This record gives sequence, C-alpha cells and structure tokens, in this order.
Amino acid sequence: MTNPSIQDFGPVDNSSSPHSLLRTVPYPAVRIQAGFWAERQALNRTVSLQHGFEMLEKAGNFHNLRMAAGWETGNYSGRNFYDEDIYKWLEALAWELGSGPDETLQRMADEVTNLICAAQQPDGYLNSYFQVVEPACKWMDLDHGHELYCAGHFFQAAVAFHRAVGDDRLLHVAVRLADHIDSIFGPGKKEGACGHPEVEMALVELYRAAGDPRYLSLAQFFIDQRGKRKMRGWGPYGPEYHQDHVPVRQAGELAGHAVRQMYLTTGVTDLFMETGEPALKEAIDRLWQDLAGSKMYITGGVGSRYEGEAFGESYELPPDQCYCETCAAIGNLMWNWRLLLLSGEGRYADLIERALYNGILSSPALDGRHFFYVNPLMVRQGGSLRLSTNGPDGTELSGRPQWHEVACCPPNVMRLFASLAHYLATTDPGGIQIHQYAAANLDLVFGSGRQVALRMQTEYPWQGSIRLDIDRSDGDPWQLRLRVPGWSQSARLSINGAALEAPALQAGYLAVERAWQAGDVVQLELGMQPMLIQANPRVDATRGCLAIQRGPLVYCLETQDQVNSVNLLDVAIDPLAALEPRWRADLLGGLMVIEAGSQVTETGRWSASLYQPFLPSNPPQSAQKTRLVAIPYFAWGNRGLTSMRIWIPRSP
Amino acid sequence: MTNPSIQDFGPVDNSSSPHSLLRTVPYPAVRIQAGFWAERQALNRTVSLQHGFEMLEKAGNFHNLRMAAGWETGNYSGRNFYDEDIYKWLEALAWELGSGPDETLQRMADEVTNLICAAQQPDGYLNSYFQVVEPACKWMDLDHGHELYCAGHFFQAAVAFHRAVGDDRLLHVAVRLADHIDSIFGPGKKEGACGHPEVEMALVELYRAAGDPRYLSLAQFFIDQRGKRKMRGWGPYGPEYHQDHVPVRQAGELAGHAVRQMYLTTGVTDLFMETGEPALKEAIDRLWQDLAGSKMYITGGVGSRYEGEAFGESYELPPDQCYCETCAAIGNLMWNWRLLLLSGEGRYADLIERALYNGILSSPALDGRHFFYVNPLMVRQGGSLRLSTNGPDGTELSGRPQWHEVACCPPNVMRLFASLAHYLATTDPGGIQIHQYAAANLDLVFGSGRQVALRMQTEYPWQGSIRLDIDRSDGDPWQLRLRVPGWSQSARLSINGAALEAPALQAGYLAVERAWQAGDVVQLELGMQPMLIQANPRVDATRGCLAIQRGPLVYCLETQDQVNSVNLLDVAIDPLAALEPRWRADLLGGLMVIEAGSQVTETGRWSASLYQPFLPSNPPQSAQKTRLVAIPYFAWGNRGLTSMRIWIPRSP
Repeated sequence: MTNPSIQDFGPVDNSSSPHSLLRTVPYPAVRIQAGFWAERQALNRTVSLQHGFEMLEKAGNFHNLRMAAGWETGNYSGRNFYDEDIYKWLEALAWELGSGPDETLQRMADEVTNLICAAQQPDGYLNSYFQVVEPACKWMDLDHGHELYCAGHFFQAAVAFHRAVGDDRLLHVAVRLADHIDSIFGPGKKEGACGHPEVEMALVELYRAAGDPRYLSLAQFFIDQRGKRKMRGWGPYGPEYHQDHVPVRQAGELAGHAVRQMYLTTGVTDLFMETGEPALKEAIDRLWQDLAGSKMYITGGVGSRYEGEAFGESYELPPDQCYCETCAAIGNLMWNWRLLLLSGEGRYADLIERALYNGILSSPALDGRHFFYVNPLMVRQGGSLRLSTNGPDGTELSGRPQWHEVACCPPNVMRLFASLAHYLATTDPGGIQIHQYAAANLDLVFGSGRQVALRMQTEYPWQGSIRLDIDRSDGDPWQLRLRVPGWSQSARLSINGAALEAPALQAGYLAVERAWQAGDVVQLELGMQPMLIQANPRVDATRGCLAIQRGPLVYCLETQDQVNSVNLLDVAIDPLAALEPRWRADLLGGLMVIEAGSQVTETGRWSASLYQPFLPSNPPQSAQKTRLVAIPYFAWGNRGLTSMRIWIPRSP
Repeated sequence: MTNPSIQDFGPVDNSSSPHSLLRTVPYPAVRIQAGFWAERQALNRTVSLQHGFEMLEKAGNFHNLRMAAGWETGNYSGRNFYDEDIYKWLEALAWELGSGPDETLQRMADEVTNLICAAQQPDGYLNSYFQVVEPACKWMDLDHGHELYCAGHFFQAAVAFHRAVGDDRLLHVAVRLADHIDSIFGPGKKEGACGHPEVEMALVELYRAAGDPRYLSLAQFFIDQRGKRKMRGWGPYGPEYHQDHVPVRQAGELAGHAVRQMYLTTGVTDLFMETGEPALKEAIDRLWQDLAGSKMYITGGVGSRYEGEAFGESYELPPDQCYCETCAAIGNLMWNWRLLLLSGEGRYADLIERALYNGILSSPALDGRHFFYVNPLMVRQGGSLRLSTNGPDGTELSGRPQWHEVACCPPNVMRLFASLAHYLATTDPGGIQIHQYAAANLDLVFGSGRQVALRMQTEYPWQGSIRLDIDRSDGDPWQLRLRVPGWSQSARLSINGAALEAPALQAGYLAVERAWQAGDVVQLELGMQPMLIQANPRVDATRGCLAIQRGPLVYCLETQDQVNSVNLLDVAIDPLAALEPRWRADLLGGLMVIEAGSQVTETGRWSASLYQPFLPSNPPQSAQKTRLVAIPYFAWGNRGLTSMRIWIPRSP
C-alpha cells in the first residue's frame, strides 16, 4: 500500500484549490493492473518511450539542447519549438518512473535532466532555439516564437518529476525559468502573451507545486492579455489563430487553432479553480456548450479545418476533411477533466471517455511506434490521406508515420497514457467517485484522513460489467459514486449480490452511501448493446448517415474487413437489422467487431455523372444485400491504408 | 455588316489548327445585342473596366510597371505576379474596343500600351517584379516566380489587341518577349516550367497570331517539362501544387491547385489541336471524365479545398468548405471550349453554360464593382465567410470585396465577359453551330466563303424560347446545329411555324440541313420547368439534399427571402410539392425566383446535443410547413451576407 504524501499528485493537483468540488488523488494511489489499459501502458513504457528517445535524437531535438548547453556545435534542427517535444516525453518518463523504477527509463531521465540543467542560462532563460539561433531576439516574437509554450511544457515535466518521483532537480530549473519570465512579463513590465497558449495551465500547476503565488498571478496576466488583437495571425489566418481575437471573459464560441483554443480554455479553467472569478466560469460554460452542442466530432476530436488547424463554424463537421489533431483531442480531455473537478458532473467524464477511446486512441499504432497526427473520420483513398503537417513529399504513406516534423502529438499521447490512472477516480469530503473504468487498485484517502481500498475488475471497454471489491474501509458511512456513461441504456447495480431497485442518477452517477465493509462487492452492469448513432440534423456532412457505437467505442468500416472489399462509397446500413458483436481474438491484437446488415448500392445508373434530375417516381436504386464488418475506430489504419468511414449512409 | 478578316479572331483562333472539328468565328462576327448578357457587357464596359483601372492604380500594379520603365521610383507593391492583373484587364479592353470605339477605353489602352513598351528591356525581358526588385534573379525561381505566367497573360493581351482592333504595338513586344524566352528555355538550354501554368495556352495562341512555329515548340517544351517532380510544392502542398506531380501524358486524375490544373489542361488541349498527338488526347479525356464524373460542383466550380486552393479526392465536394475560385471556373470554361472545338460534342458546351451562369457569374456583384474570389455553395453565417485570399483581418465583410490582394479573378471575369460573343457559335465546312443562346446578330462565313446572317432573339436564361431569323443565305443547303442543353426535358423545334416531328439529337444538338432562305424563322423551345437535382450518392456532402435548377441557372436559398428569416439549417424541401417560378422585377435588378414547398424542422429534441441514439421507432421530428423562396445562385450576397445554401435537405 502506498503512503500518499502531498507532493506526489498527478498532472493536476487541486488539493488546495478553493473552487473545486472533487479532488484529484495522489499519483500512485490508483494503479491500473490488467486489461485494456494495462496493455497499452506497458507498450508505452517498454516501446513508445524508447522510440521517442530515438526519434528525439534523430530529429535533432537533443542536439539542439546540447548546443544550448555548449556541449556540441553544429546547426539547429527543426522548428523553434523543438524543445517541447522533449519536455512532453520527459513528463511521460516521470509518470512511468512514479509507477515503478526502471533502469533504462531512469538513465534516459538522468541524461536529459543533466542536459537541461546545463542548458539553462545563468539568468534562468531556457530555450535552445533562441539560445543557439537568435540569441538577440528573445521574447521579441511572442506570436510565433513559442518560448512561453516550451516553458509551459517544461514546467509540467518538472512538476511531474517533483510529484511522481520526488526528484526536484528540474523543479529548480523551472522555478528559475519562471522567475526569469516573471522578471520580464507582467503589469508595468512587458505585455503580451504566447501565440500558442500552454504556459497558463502550466504556471497554475507550478504555483500548486512550488507554492509561489507570483506564478498564479503570471498565469492570470497572460490570460488577461488575450483578445487585444495585437497578434496578426499567421498567413491567411486571423488573430484567432493565436487566440487573440477576443478577451477570454467575452468569448462566446470556440474559434481558431484547435489545440491553442483547448489549451487556453484548460488554463482558464485552472485559473478559475484558484480564483473563482464568475466571469471566467461563465465564459468557459459558453465555450463548452459550443463544443458539445455544435463543434465536436463523435470521436471527441475537434478542429474541422486543415487550414489553420482550426475550428470551423457550428455544425461544420465534415468526416473526411476534418483535422482532429491528436493534441486537440488531448486538450479536450484535459479541459473536461478540470470541468469535472469543478462540478462533479458526468457529462464531462463522458466527454473524456469519448475522446480517450476514439479521437486520442486512434493516434498510436498498435505497435506503439507510429502515430497519427490528424484523425479523420473518413478516408476515401488511403494513399491520398494527408496524415501529417510534414505534408506529402510524394511518397504514399502505408500507415501512421513513425514521427513528424512537428512531433507534438506522439509525446502528448505518451504522457497521457503514462498518467492515465490520474483520471480514473477522485474524492470529495464524503467519499469516492469513479469516473473511468479499468482493472485497477485504488488506495484512496478522503475527508479527514479516511482510508479506503478498492479493487476494480472489468473487461472494459469490451464488456460493460464492472466489479468493485472493497478491501478496506473504516466502517463509517461514505458515498461511492459510479459514473453511468451517457451511452448506457440499462445500468444495473448490485451490492453483495442484491440488486438495487431503480437507483437514481445524480449528474450522471449512481451514488450509494453506506457503511462499507471490507469484503463488500459492488457490481455494475452498464449494458453494452451495439447501437446506431445519428447526428444532429444541422450537421450537413453526416446527413442520412449512422455511426455504430458499442460502449465507449465508436466503430468504423475499413475495406479489409468487407466482403469482396466492397467500395465503401457504395454501402448503406440497414437500420432495422441487428448489430452483432463478435470477439475476434485473431484480429489486430484481439477486438470486438460488429456485423451489420446492409446493402451495396448499384451505381451504374449514374454512369460517371455527378448530377441528375430527381424524380420522385424513380424506382429506388437496385441494391444487393451484404454484411458489413465494423472495427473500433481506434484500430483503423493498422493494416495499410485503404478506405475507412465512421458515418455510414442509411438505407431508405 | 462586318467584313471579317483573318487577323480578328477572338480568344481562340483555330482557323488553321489541323485537329479541330469546329472553327471559331471572327471576333466581331457575333454581336450580343440585347437581354441578359448585353446588360452585363454594358456594365463591364462602362463600370468594371474603369473600376479595374482605378484599382490597378491604387494597388500599385501600374506603379510597379512605371518603375520598370524608369518613369517612377519607390517601392514595389504586392506580389511578384502583379503584372498579370494588368494584362487580363488589358485583354478585356481589347475585346471591348473591338466591339466598338470608346474614347475613355482607348485612352486607357494607349496609356498602358506605352507603359509596357517602355518597360520592356532591350533584350525583350518584361516583368516589373524582377526588373525592379530582384534583377539578378530572373528565371531563377520558376516554381514561385510567376515570370512565365505573367508573360502568358501578356501574350494573350497582345494577341487580343492584334485580333480585336488590329493594333500590333503590343504584339511586337510579345514577340520580342517570346523570342527572349525562347533564347533561355528549350532543349539544350534551360529546363523547367512555370510553377503556375498559363504560358502554354498563350504560346499556342501567339503561334497562331504571329505564325512562328518556335512558339508552338516552346509550348510543347513547357508541357513536356511537367511531372519531373523537381518542384517541391509550397508549404504543405506537394508537387501537384505546381502541376509537377505527373507527366502530362500519364495524368489520370485532376489534382493540386485547381486554377493551375485547369490552365494546364487548357494548354495541353490547345497543343493537341495543333499536333494531334493521341497520348495528349487520351490524357485529356481521362481528366475530363474525372472532372465531370467526380470533381465538379453543380455550379461548374472546381477546387474542393481551401488549403492549396486545390482539387480534393473524387466525390469530395463539400458545399460549405469548397474553394471554387472564380479563375478555376473560368479555366474550366476555357478548357471545355477547346474540347468543344475539337469534338463538336454538346456535353462540353453544357459544361461551359453551367460554369458561366453559376460558378463564374457569381463572382461579380450586380454593381460590377465587387467580386467574389471564392464561390462557396453554402454559407452558414455570412460574417464568417472566408471570401478572399487576403484572409480575414478581423473586419467582417458585408459582401463581395471591391478588389483583392491577389486580384486574379476580377480582370479574368472582365476579359471573359468582354469576349463572350466568341463562345456563342462556330462553323464547320457544312454549316453553323449555335452553342450558347443570347439575343445576338451573327454574320458568319463557313466553307469556301459562304456567308450567312442570323438574328437570334431570346430572353435566355429567364425563358427557354429562342427565335432565329435567317437574314441572309446563299440558297444552297447547309446545316444548322442548335444545342439542346442536358437540362432540357422537352425540346421542340419548328421552322417557319411547322413543328419538326421528333428531331433527333446528335451529340447534344438538333441538326437541320436545308436550303435556308432569308426570311426563314426557326423556333426552338427548350422547356424551362424548374426541377430538382440530386447528386451522385457517392457525394457524401450532399446526401439527402436536392438543388433547384431552372434552365441553366442553379438556385440557392438566401435568408433574406425566407418567411421569418428561418434558419436555413432547419429547412427541408418537399420533393412532391410544385416548384413555382415567379418573375420579380423589383428584386436584384429583376430575376426569376422559385418558390418551393417545404417544412421547418423542430430541433428542440436535440437541445444543444450533437449525437443521439438512432431508434427506428422514433416518431419523425415535428415539422411546420412553410414556403421557401430561391433566387439564382449568381445573385446571392448582393444584399449583405447572411446564410445561403444551394443544396437543401429533402424532407422524408
């Protein structure tokens, strides 16, 4: 059993935040033990982190820092924000080392920690691009320089080492860097904010970890700088590209670069958690309504437009030309996590689940060594997929690239997977809340030191049954809250074998308060019938289409699984035919496929034409019955790239 | 009556081209006299050309050339291709002066002609950007330098003055420039082609006007340079951006920057018209199938993607996020004109009509002083429309911009409208073909000097009746071919009041051969019932939607015309209700609106959610009956920008 102490919280430590309903749990207090996520965490730990190390060396990121440290000479490689790839990867190392020691990971961490310590300037400044390439231009190009963005990611890595393993070497670097930034920016000093929001949430976390209220003030300062329209945008993209189009408190809709927008709203939510300023919460609530009501894909992905990597208009959600950058979905998850902490409402946890199992999980290949940057919901021809900001160089990709010129996404996935246990449960003074389901052990402390141990067993997301064994409890009553996902059509709860009659949902949770005893067994059956989903009729791009979902997983069709590799442009799903799930141990590491009744439309009548008069009396197009086989969306593109679609036309 | 001579042909003179079925007619041989196009030509002549003159002065285009001439000093303004805006505008002046003298237009033409003559270098070189800004870098950046592109547009302007008014001052400049280019490029000399195709078609035309076969060889040389993948593309866009991704003869599908692709195929078709090389024709035919069968909008617009101003995949035709640059639709028209000349097939003339009345005509405002650059088929919120390559600068546009930073489109519209008569009719040895209908006088010569005069009267495109009076004929039989557009459901033809029984269509034309006499009257009734159009079911973006079309005009809904300004996202058209055309003299200069039965869908059940389970037993959403009022698409956006859509969801 762990002995949680104040310094080892996960990515968010709101233990002292005044405006938060739920508390995050100490970092090693929840341990994923088996099943779906344990496998993915093991892959992340043993394969992806090493892969990241090699790629960061190959792409020159480490070399850049070594030049800043004066250890090497040569040319700077890549973009001016290459440091941040290192920092997110480093943060992942921290969380993994917090889960258990590992010689290889520790050696990598030490090597890079030493490098960063050596690279920092005496005045606290740290950024390899400006140290090596443009030393005279520090803090001069806030729009595109990414200095504060890199600093923010560094703060998060430093805080992670502090919390996960009690290693404060980087935290000292971070404090010196933050103090340096504080000496430059603020009221009466330099004005402006980073073109790429990130430092805001990181400064709040640094404030929580290091305790200095100047960092919180600085976060607020940067947030208050937004909306002055001083930034000109980039290329054809206006000030919303840099999130400078509207003051944060006046924001009414999500706009501009999706990752930047998500990171900004996350930082604003962090700030509200500390200050409780109503105007911030009102703005956040408006933006969330805009997200959930008009701008989010069924995968939890966001960003409808390639150009500007940006949000589109309300209801502009094309499945084929969406951007859905992995980092934007992760930003979506981070933002909703903070909203959940504020409010305890299940709709935010639902959204976290949606993004996690679909728009985020689609990024890494099953081998842990390849990553999608964009996550489209439809691909007509695999070869023409625009997968990466690298842009096509003429070679056709056969799957996820192993790295990217702009490699923000892979290490973002790594740090999320490494810290995933953080997002499973919280506490409040009266008990425990379970938000996400995985086979895990939970050793939790709530109220005034009340200790509880639980074991969660489940084959989630493949099965909707969850068993909770209470292994330790103090005999006094406390409340257990279990999330019932929005997709669950028939949640049933039993305690020690006795079914609870019509348990009431409270904000998306079943809440049971009793004097729990060690040995108590809770069983939750969520029901996981496959279902068809339709989109709001205002979403033009998916009109007349249905998507298959089972539990949290959104499904897709991939050519490889279909009878005669039928053209996915010509299939139509029969909404009246049963959807049949089938476990396929042989397929893609083992997964549940879903078979659906459908037909293949005969398109001969169109004979290479695009437009024809509509005649109501026309006989329906002849169609041939067939079966469609759908796989979970996250698994697509692991057998070469052919065609894929989530939204399937509905037969008349 | 004009006396056509060999030198005064219109934009394309294929009178000596060996591989062409139809011949273009001498430039002033067809004169539009009244009606729809006469009004637009008058506006073009009296308003738009003057507006262009002022804008070219204001934007600095003339100043750039004056610096090249040594007349002025200062800073170069705008992009490196600013000369071409002048040349297209100048070409429009030529065609207008060819239709009749005008002191103001002549003064402008003389002024700019003198300027160009002065700006040309002694060695023949002419390009203000490289003369003024980068004199040491001539011909060094073919990918992005636009030197050959500007030269091409200049050749066309020079040829236009030669043909339309017999003014050869610019032709001499053009020949010297072409000779200079020929001294630089070619086998054994410099290799490579322009990143922006255009010079290919222009060189063929210069060859036709000036007679020097070196220019044809040079066109072929540049065409043969394509597909070597030496050009790296631009930003994230690969070699297809510059049309360097595949050798022309191997091209199988349209790709990359839409304007460049259209200009290239136009040039290739011009080359085939001269050389007859089968591999060129085979490639062109494949590309045309790809266009008409999978990549063209119902408006005749092309270019599905903002990013890269590019073609998308087959069937990727989103109405809202399409680019549909005006110049691409004009390129589409120019290409199809050449295909029509080659083959005499009506499908090409149909496509010209489609583009002209919709995707091109939507560019100019009704005032002739404002122009759309992109021509989307759907706009949800007017204020968020991305109208121009300028990019949003934070101000919301209330309509078409008066000019653009990249101002290729406005003068392209001007030169097309000024030369529109060119596209109405052709001849072959056996007679006359009428391709487009307008109130016009035609004085034509075919065969061995046989002269025919016709008067065409019609209220096209508002009415489908066309009357042709034969005013002169030599008494020997000849064939009159009249195009029956693909949309015509009930074409009827009568001669001197006697209906022809079941006249047979030949490649889209009604052909009547007889010994025509002066005084003969031909009446063609095309039928112009409004109709509903559906798209190929492979086009995901318009699934379950219908468009309204009447004659050649595609219609759209604009908020202003609807009952209670209903949200256009919530309307559904009733396919069984009658479509009722109504002439509205008071509206937008007079136009035919179409009223349609429809309903407004109650969206309350969705209460700000995006995704819900689909239950076949769900009652249909409640809906309220209403009437929709559609206006011709070309007229949209003339009353401020609200919402607009061409494709309307179909009620169940």
